[in-house]
Amino acid sequence: MKTLVQEKVGQASGILRELGIDCWLTFVRESSINGDSILDFILGADVTWHSAFIVTSGGEAHAIVGRYDRKTVEDTGAYGRVLDYVEAWRPLLQESLKSLSPSKIAINYSEESEICDGLTHGMYLVLCACLREIGLEDRLVSAERVISALRQRKTPQEIERIRGAISAAERIFESARSFIAAGRTEGEIADFMKSHVKDAGLGLAWGEATCPSVFTGPATAEAHYKPTERKVREGDVLNIDFGVKWEGYCSDLQRTFYILRKGERAAPPEVERGFDAIRESIELARKAIRPGANGQQVDAVARNYLLAHGYEEFPHALGHQVGRFPHDGTALLGPSWEKYGRKPFAEIEAGMVFTIEPRLTVPDRGIVTVEEMVVVRDAGAEFLSGPQRDLWLVGG
Amino acid sequence: MKTLVQEKVGQASGILRELGIDCWLTFVRESSINGDSILDFILGADVTWHSAFIVTSGGEAHAIVGRYDRKTVEDTGAYGRVLDYVEAWRPLLQESLKSLSPSKIAINYSEESEICDGLTHGMYLVLCACLREIGLEDRLVSAERVISALRQRKTPQEIERIRGAISAAERIFESARSFIAAGRTEGEIADFMKSHVKDAGLGLAWGEATCPSVFTGPATAEAHYKPTERKVREGDVLNIDFGVKWEGYCSDLQRTFYILRKGERAAPPEVERGFDAIRESIELARKAIRPGANGQQVDAVARNYLLAHGYEEFPHALGHQVGRFPHDGTALLGPSWEKYGRKPFAEIEAGMVFTIEPRLTVPDRGIVTVEEMVVVRDAGAEFLSGPQRDLWLVGG
Repeated sequence: MKTLVQEKVGQASGILRELGIDCWLTFVRESSINGDSILDFILGADVTWHSAFIVTSGGEAHAIVGRYDRKTVEDTGAYGRVLDYVEAWRPLLQESLKSLSPSKIAINYSEESEICDGLTHGMYLVLCACLREIGLEDRLVSAERVISALRQRKTPQEIERIRGAISAAERIFESARSFIAAGRTEGEIADFMKSHVKDAGLGLAWGEATCPSVFTGPATAEAHYKPTERKVREGDVLNIDFGVKWEGYCSDLQRTFYILRKGERAAPPEVERGFDAIRESIELARKAIRPGANGQQVDAVARNYLLAHGYEEFPHALGHQVGRFPHDGTALLGPSWEKYGRKPFAEIEAGMVFTIEPRLTVPDRGIVTVEEMVVVRDAGAEFLSGPQRDLWLVGG
Repeated sequence: MKTLVQEKVGQASGILRELGIDCWLTFVRESSINGDSILDFILGADVTWHSAFIVTSGGEAHAIVGRYDRKTVEDTGAYGRVLDYVEAWRPLLQESLKSLSPSKIAINYSEESEICDGLTHGMYLVLCACLREIGLEDRLVSAERVISALRQRKTPQEIERIRGAISAAERIFESARSFIAAGRTEGEIADFMKSHVKDAGLGLAWGEATCPSVFTGPATAEAHYKPTERKVREGDVLNIDFGVKWEGYCSDLQRTFYILRKGERAAPPEVERGFDAIRESIELARKAIRPGANGQQVDAVARNYLLAHGYEEFPHALGHQVGRFPHDGTALLGPSWEKYGRKPFAEIEAGMVFTIEPRLTVPDRGIVTVEEMVVVRDAGAEFLSGPQRDLWLVGG
């Protein structure tokens, strides 16, 4: 079986053919510092000195790396030609590109999409000077469409890793259900979940300050803020945003709980109504996802549903893609706000993995927000997560 | 006591005054993906949406961030003004910069230095378009000197963290001394050390494939390559390159071992001679380090000493700076090779932390390489590591 790196380098060649670009160049140095996250796909390691990775539409893959990184690159089995150097990288890159004589050289920058924007400005200037010497500086184009396709069109191996990350997070959510109780603090709940992540040998999907995020009650901070010493109280709506990283891939899920008061058997009607509205808006959005649609259309389905039911507009996109990072993709299920640029208008394709995560506030109770994950197939979107069907009740 | 973020943001203001630059701007989005490693110093967290951090020579510090990152920024206590947004960042950044009306805006790109090159090319284009609308696009300059000084001039808090990372690595090296034995593989030795890192709750200083790197015998791969199934044999020279991360700061050390043959009491004379030459070249280099010297001069001291003693030239720089990354700094103790650019000619300053790591081959035995860490003081360089005085003998 091909390794993931071999699979993705091969996939890149096909994408280049499809887009009519003959050469894709990744150019990095000291990649652990201000590197390019695309290296995870095309190498699976960091490099130290100036390094270039070239993939062509004809199926060739060349690497130019420092001597001490040569074996690491050879071991991937993905590069037919590996050149190494001790003193000077420039002649090797110039000779490689001259011999390929590409009509376009796609490089990793994008105004729109952070996942396609791994080339630093300093390295862009270094590259331009190098290409100028061989008369190729006018061939540079953005690799945005190459990288977007490569990261977004998940292979079966990638989907399986995401499934693994989802299952692992779901198991930890299950454990948390019996730990959560009135009197516990947000911080204690977060620590409990983090200890399970550690015991299972998993990574957190994002920074440990806010993974998980735990919000309880009506006066909670908003998403992305770290858990506090606030105590869970009876009558609170509580929600948790959490994901793990497994085999390099992430999950990103949210679940909503209600803390029963003594004698209560169910949540108050306004909490149930809020939860049902969220669940229904997720289902409507999932049904709107299909290859050829765009994210603005899908976002509007959930956004308008909640508005029509009297809730405020949620102040973020409905959903994002997930991969090696919890936010990983160009196409976005979002509204046409300035900061999102053209992302909500990018075409949805089979193989993409999205979250769906609407939110609403129940006054005096807290925030209801559920986040599911789906994969896009030719016929539409399928849940990858086991969707939350009912509010999770605690205590009582 | 000030936190490290407060300390570094304050230090940045002073550096701006010294350099005659009135404004320093860090501009990032989704910083966990293709972000800017300077955020570790000026925020200590990641941000999600487009975010700007402005420090002025007058001592002001402003942040413009997405709504959900606001509290994280406020909690640092380092920013006097925090603006947040939901839909559009551009008006906030434009208004902030117009009100400051800086004559120069230093931004994070550098052709020479990867640590100063955190701004991606796509974000550079986005920023240029934004500044063009307010007539400030001609004010942009490189922040290379600002960031170099900020990262290189370690504060006492930073030195203490590096000391902690060195002590922790030294303890694990000590444990490894009694584990290493003829018959063990490079991989087993690496796994042993990694298990100690995990048990101590530490991080690895670099990627786990090559931290530690373990090389035994004459046919070993070169540095940066991962440990193999090669078995340690009697008569081998063995060396290990290893470091840990503690409180965000790294150590990076190498130690050389000799595996005694049955009945041997000491290493063969050619191995001892090699070790002594390495140790002496380190000491000579350390004495050559002082504020005002440059790295090319220091590198030449060790390089020429080894050449004069009949050894081949080591195919890398003598030493690099260490900080949040194992390679962290612009000024480099290196030769004037093309790939190093002007780094070997940057002035050495007090507060810098360097490695010194010459290498030589003893034919039929293996590679001798020792790596120590020093801090530059006004009077010269002091060891931070407990230097290896003798070859570490195993077995016999």
